[in-house]
Amino acid sequence: MAVNVGVINVTGFAGMEAARILWAHPEARLVAATGRSLAGQKLGEAFPHLAEYGDFTIQPEIDVDVDVVLSALPTAESAQACLPFIRSGVRVVDIAADFRLNSPDAFEEWFGKKHPAPELLDQAVYGLPELNASAIAESKLVANPGCYPEASILAMAPAIAAGLVEGQVIVDAKSGVSGAGRGSGGGFGYANVNEDVSAYKIGVHNHQPEIAQELSKLSPHGAVDVTFVPHLVPMTRGIHATCYAKLKTSISQDAVIDIYREFYKDATFTRVTDAPPHTKNTVGSNFCLVHPAVDERGGVLVAIGVLDNLVKGAAGQAIENVNLMFGLSPRAGLEQLPVFP
Amino acid sequence: MAVNVGVINVTGFAGMEAARILWAHPEARLVAATGRSLAGQKLGEAFPHLAEYGDFTIQPEIDVDVDVVLSALPTAESAQACLPFIRSGVRVVDIAADFRLNSPDAFEEWFGKKHPAPELLDQAVYGLPELNASAIAESKLVANPGCYPEASILAMAPAIAAGLVEGQVIVDAKSGVSGAGRGSGGGFGYANVNEDVSAYKIGVHNHQPEIAQELSKLSPHGAVDVTFVPHLVPMTRGIHATCYAKLKTSISQDAVIDIYREFYKDATFTRVTDAPPHTKNTVGSNFCLVHPAVDERGGVLVAIGVLDNLVKGAAGQAIENVNLMFGLSPRAGLEQLPVFP
Amino acid sequence: MAVNVGVINVTGFAGMEAARILWAHPEARLVAATGRSLAGQKLGEAFPHLAEYGDFTIQPEIDVDVDVVLSALPTAESAQACLPFIRSGVRVVDIAADFRLNSPDAFEEWFGKKHPAPELLDQAVYGLPELNASAIAESKLVANPGCYPEASILAMAPAIAAGLVEGQVIVDAKSGVSGAGRGSGGGFGYANVNEDVSAYKIGVHNHQPEIAQELSKLSPHGAVDVTFVPHLVPMTRGIHATCYAKLKTSISQDAVIDIYREFYKDATFTRVTDAPPHTKNTVGSNFCLVHPAVDERGGVLVAIGVLDNLVKGAAGQAIENVNLMFGLSPRAGLEQLPVFP
Amino acid sequence: MAVNVGVINVTGFAGMEAARILWAHPEARLVAATGRSLAGQKLGEAFPHLAEYGDFTIQPEIDVDVDVVLSALPTAESAQACLPFIRSGVRVVDIAADFRLNSPDAFEEWFGKKHPAPELLDQAVYGLPELNASAIAESKLVANPGCYPEASILAMAPAIAAGLVEGQVIVDAKSGVSGAGRGSGGGFGYANVNEDVSAYKIGVHNHQPEIAQELSKLSPHGAVDVTFVPHLVPMTRGIHATCYAKLKTSISQDAVIDIYREFYKDATFTRVTDAPPHTKNTVGSNFCLVHPAVDERGGVLVAIGVLDNLVKGAAGQAIENVNLMFGLSPRAGLEQLPVFP
Repeated sequence: MAVNVGVINVTGFAGMEAARILWAHPEARLVAATGRSLAGQKLGEAFPHLAEYGDFTIQPEIDVDVDVVLSALPTAESAQACLPFIRSGVRVVDIAADFRLNSPDAFEEWFGKKHPAPELLDQAVYGLPELNASAIAESKLVANPGCYPEASILAMAPAIAAGLVEGQVIVDAKSGVSGAGRGSGGGFGYANVNEDVSAYKIGVHNHQPEIAQELSKLSPHGAVDVTFVPHLVPMTRGIHATCYAKLKTSISQDAVIDIYREFYKDATFTRVTDAPPHTKNTVGSNFCLVHPAVDERGGVLVAIGVLDNLVKGAAGQAIENVNLMFGLSPRAGLEQLPVFP
Repeated sequence: MAVNVGVINVTGFAGMEAARILWAHPEARLVAATGRSLAGQKLGEAFPHLAEYGDFTIQPEIDVDVDVVLSALPTAESAQACLPFIRSGVRVVDIAADFRLNSPDAFEEWFGKKHPAPELLDQAVYGLPELNASAIAESKLVANPGCYPEASILAMAPAIAAGLVEGQVIVDAKSGVSGAGRGSGGGFGYANVNEDVSAYKIGVHNHQPEIAQELSKLSPHGAVDVTFVPHLVPMTRGIHATCYAKLKTSISQDAVIDIYREFYKDATFTRVTDAPPHTKNTVGSNFCLVHPAVDERGGVLVAIGVLDNLVKGAAGQAIENVNLMFGLSPRAGLEQLPVFP
Repeated sequence: MAVNVGVINVTGFAGMEAARILWAHPEARLVAATGRSLAGQKLGEAFPHLAEYGDFTIQPEIDVDVDVVLSALPTAESAQACLPFIRSGVRVVDIAADFRLNSPDAFEEWFGKKHPAPELLDQAVYGLPELNASAIAESKLVANPGCYPEASILAMAPAIAAGLVEGQVIVDAKSGVSGAGRGSGGGFGYANVNEDVSAYKIGVHNHQPEIAQELSKLSPHGAVDVTFVPHLVPMTRGIHATCYAKLKTSISQDAVIDIYREFYKDATFTRVTDAPPHTKNTVGSNFCLVHPAVDERGGVLVAIGVLDNLVKGAAGQAIENVNLMFGLSPRAGLEQLPVFP
Repeated sequence: MAVNVGVINVTGFAGMEAARILWAHPEARLVAATGRSLAGQKLGEAFPHLAEYGDFTIQPEIDVDVDVVLSALPTAESAQACLPFIRSGVRVVDIAADFRLNSPDAFEEWFGKKHPAPELLDQAVYGLPELNASAIAESKLVANPGCYPEASILAMAPAIAAGLVEGQVIVDAKSGVSGAGRGSGGGFGYANVNEDVSAYKIGVHNHQPEIAQELSKLSPHGAVDVTFVPHLVPMTRGIHATCYAKLKTSISQDAVIDIYREFYKDATFTRVTDAPPHTKNTVGSNFCLVHPAVDERGGVLVAIGVLDNLVKGAAGQAIENVNLMFGLSPRAGLEQLPVFP
């Protein structure tokens, strides 16, 4: 019997991607989807790539029984919308950032608002299966990782956990524009973005504390400091996180790769590559490719993580979490290989 | 029991796309794949997006039992490679152009060589299920359509069949660069293609006779003349065929759309749209979107067809044909919705 | 002594392009520039590529003496803004469409409003120097051509003037997104435009009557009917107009090229090419490349025109017109070769 | 009287860019250009954007008198070709890397060959006018900077010179594909590059020692260690260097910007920006935009440099050097503003 899924805010990129993936999911199905401005429209008319959904209509609220809710609302609106479901025992995967930071103070510092439901932070599980698979399986409230943190944490986790590095972790991340969401304004117009690279929110992006928090949990040496600089590059999907940290002792690249392979030996979707990976080799799929390199002259670890920000960085990760929460096949609905070229 | 598929020349874009799609096909599987320069390499090392194939190795020849062969060799090399399979009773879908033109003279005129196996032309079926589903189901040799013809024929077929137009059909087609194949040379370098549009092979592209031949078969008024001008646009996947023909009598756009909807009412993957379709709404999927418009002032039918040249225009079409030939579910392996945005 | 130029609406793409070009113009200079939302800001802060302008400030109105005004307002707002200058004897180049159609009824039919200054239509000269150089030189009100018409008319003019073709002229045009203007909304977001081609306003785009009007003036056989279908392709700058018309009699491609070369032998910026031209070979420059080809099988002329829609299709053309109106060197400020690759 | 310039290897991207810029240079002109495979062809036929050069023909050797030679040959071939000119007293700007590293041992270590003319290294001046203007003016042999080093050095120079930072400098650079040159192979095909980001030559790119060498010369604290990781992003022109270094003491961003502004107060083409700069705001121009930011939480300086790799990063820089060497106006031929959007 299929798991019945409701999506809150199907009209954003993450929400519509969840609908796309669920269409071909053998063990789960979309039974309700909300959207504010487009409520009442057919999903497949609002978004022609979803035309196969036929008469399926976007609703103002989820008003049918669902087994799990995926919320793709903007951060700080999402918790509010999730609360009724959480209280009535429906499982929730929050694709927004509302339940990612463990501390309500950190939330307030980085998002500029009081946390809307601090009492729930304790039960929220950070939804990164490579680190927390069993906790996710038993959780009723999963905080789906941000797209930048997902790539960055998966790139650095084995090195941090093994105590290979020390000092500041510098994360230089490059993202396609879909990370900014469907509603993003004029700065993301084609004429501006094409043939352009630029940095933004240097040192002040709210994905920084998320990366630091999760890496710190893995560290045998206490808190990990992170400098995070995101860049916009002219592509639609894809994140490339290049992470730099000083190696504590000299170690060969082969030895580091062995440590990484061991760390991810049971991972369903994260794979360690011998060569620098290409974001294009993940497009449309739930895979994350990780590559650690050693700059021997500088004594620096350069660890790279790449993924499709809308799949492994958002909706695909959410569905992977649903699979875990309901005991489905871990790859159900996520078997598709990357669309290349 | 799964249908065992062999792919000849898996190292071209069409061949590797067949491997990509077959990975998630529930009723067919890739059991052998050949490639000349890369024989001996693992498929997933040569092409990292296929890494899930693990130890699956590219071979010089197909040397295991297969139920069907997909040949993705260049035109005029393909027939030769298919012959042994045809003779031994293995079904063949030829993705090259070797068996598309019914007349060996036309082949020689447009391809500049004698046809390698003229005796087989009679039994080859043109593999466009929207027109020839039952013949494909019973065929042992299917000539998979070219990417430009697939989009152009699907755009014009209902109008030609209904006798709506007269005179020359002008096909102005726009293609992404993957249509040129993986081995294409320097003209397809990023620095040349990006921020550029150009026409090529004006009136002399060998897809022209294929379009004319198939439309003529549908025409109640005899042979259809076609002027075909392909253009290269800066994208990877996608074909947009804009077709123009003089309307015989005044007719409303709504009436034309009704004729088109009726024509395609049983089509599995071709859908008639109310608004001009976007190639992006087909990427990674086997769908073709068709839209007829009427220029009332000029008395001209403008019929548009869009598709992903590597899926509906090549490997997906081939697998749709395999599904028909073996009585599988028509959508098996092709359920995935387009990757948008 | 330099010609003093004022630009109305410097904040749109055409206006800011005029400012860009004038910066390096040896005989003309920008002395005033208006913009509504950005009035009071420094030009170089609003648009960092114009940073060399230093303290030059965007004004609400032109309040200094100017020799000529370039208006880059939206159509139907532009005439109003130009009127005071025209009345006071200042020369005007209108980059909008307000003065392009000779008939106020045609304006009303295509733009849905009464013409704001029908009494001026008689004195407006269509600003295409390849056809009207001497009239432009003596005019006080120049209607700068639209970007699509500029490419289309230059592609077809020699054939129409020589009476080579008959029947409907079909113009299939492909444009980069900058043609839609800086203020264009969400449909032009990067995530939507990249990897996409689509047609729009099939048969109803208001550049159609402009093309038909100017070609008809050249025709020895009376009015020319035009079917015009614009397409959006994923690039920033560039227009590629592919024009189709039935040849009246058989003629070789070489003979057609000779007719084209003769027609443009005195043209400053339009050049006839032997091979299909690339839009990329015009980027950032005022050149238009024209290529006629003959589809012998179909008896069809295929004539192509390519240009940079913001230069030869807008601001560069306007400055070329200024050069003519003030007797400056025809290439002044427009010497730069295309930026390739 | 114009300076007569010869270009060796006009058929590469840097060489053809020099030809493009020289066309509109008021005080210098291209009088000879060589190219191996294309010798004998007209420059404007080989490269249609240079069509204005008319009958100007690519030669096998420079056989007319020139005042200065720009060599755009590949590294390690260039010195050889420059030698005869240097010996006969003709000034040379080497766009290749042959004369950039001061030590022949470093050359051998990073380029894998013995230096072809170690005796000339002493007289070569590193051609970065922001640092070495007067030495360049008097030099007969200028080593034009690499594109990555130009952006990276200009980003970090003021901070290094002021002693603001300590420890490893990490340079995470993003480049468009034209940096790889016209002859680069299949990895730079459109279908591979579009919608992709990837790192390459992690820690082993031969621009690393060039950056370290020049920054070390500026440092009050001795040698500067550099970790350099280049990335390929889907654009044609543009380099974005993001540089990271630990601040020695706490300092405000405003204070750092003041130090940068003071450092570049006399620079002709380098400008310090208040916001993170966009590569697109330099396309087609000789400008470099530099932006220092302070990550206060991490105590890290993030310094960004962006430029057009073919202009300020290659041919434009070479012509700026020619202007200095011959006492021409510093901006001659380089007045054009960036082509935006």
